[in-house]
Amino acid sequence: MKKIITVGREFGSGGRELGRRLAEELGFEYYDKEIVSEIAKKTSLSEGYVKSVLESKPHQLYPITIGRTMAIVGDYQFSQLQTVYQAQDSIIKDLASKSDCVIVGRCADYILREHDPYRIFVYADMESRLRRCRERAVEGEDLSEKALKQHIQDIDKGRAKYYDFYTGQKWGAKENYDLLLNTTDRDIKNLVPHLANLIRNM
Amino acid sequence: MKKIITVGREFGSGGRELGRRLAEELGFEYYDKEIVSEIAKKTSLSEGYVKSVLESKPHQLYPITIGRTMAIVGDYQFSQLQTVYQAQDSIIKDLASKSDCVIVGRCADYILREHDPYRIFVYADMESRLRRCRERAVEGEDLSEKALKQHIQDIDKGRAKYYDFYTGQKWGAKENYDLLLNTTDRDIKNLVPHLANLIRNM
Repeated sequence: MKKIITVGREFGSGGRELGRRLAEELGFEYYDKEIVSEIAKKTSLSEGYVKSVLESKPHQLYPITIGRTMAIVGDYQFSQLQTVYQAQDSIIKDLASKSDCVIVGRCADYILREHDPYRIFVYADMESRLRRCRERAVEGEDLSEKALKQHIQDIDKGRAKYYDFYTGQKWGAKENYDLLLNTTDRDIKNLVPHLANLIRNM
Repeated sequence: MKKIITVGREFGSGGRELGRRLAEELGFEYYDKEIVSEIAKKTSLSEGYVKSVLESKPHQLYPITIGRTMAIVGDYQFSQLQTVYQAQDSIIKDLASKSDCVIVGRCADYILREHDPYRIFVYADMESRLRRCRERAVEGEDLSEKALKQHIQDIDKGRAKYYDFYTGQKWGAKENYDLLLNTTDRDIKNLVPHLANLIRNM
């Protein structure tokens, strides 16, 4: 069976960088945004729409349970959500069957639960996440401290809502992961080779 | 400043073994039960009594807040609790000032928070914890599955209550640790050298 590592992450924690570097270090494939493009292709929906579903914009996933969502969003919208979920499910399973890989986000830990993935969750304190966001901001992006903090919280709220809705589990709760890593004040580039070694020996 | 590693752990997760092996691997001192003996010596209380306080028997720590505890357990008992806490605090700080060390339990992560300890939490699913408890049981110890599960849950309830009471933080919640490790179906002896390497490079 292929070796699968999944990485859940708080926004700004460096989880994506950690996933990418881990894949490089281990010689695994790396999947992240590619999955959105694949879903869009498979469903003929726009990438923007797929992304908004996967980021759990409130009009699509509110409230939490499937039963109630059906009642509120209506049959057509619900059926589109189902289409996106099913495409995501099949694309992720397909990728995982092809080669050893690291998959960031997208509930891959849950979707691939029968493949026994090594499930990592990356998090950090707010100060460190604000700093990381500032460092990687493109020129011109200049949110106030308060607005950036709100942005981080909104994105994570969406991720948590989407994960909880889709998996019936709690996003970031330790029982759903094999290793949770706090990256506050840590140098991801430096730690990844050692993390890779630990995972190789788990 | 000395290097300090603290290990919080669910009962039966192998956290104590992990702490001991980690100390060996890193050439650090290792402290666990020694702390109870030291507290007993320092306070002239019996080891059994100190242990019962540290395991948070309900008559001593119920209910959770200090204010209410004072009202219910009475001044004398409260003052004895304070004595144990203060002794624990000073012994742990003293040990940490002497040499690099691994300390298991005892709220050491919180007590030594100004020394920037590397804070590990070890956990596992119930099935794996039951198995680990069976494997290390002394002859004659033969609890039913149900009774052993209850025993594990009771001990963890006590640890959580004691930790939450003493630190004002939540036991096992990821924001209070640097790394959380799920030891379900893992070989602790095998993984420790690699975990030690990761920690050396954090």
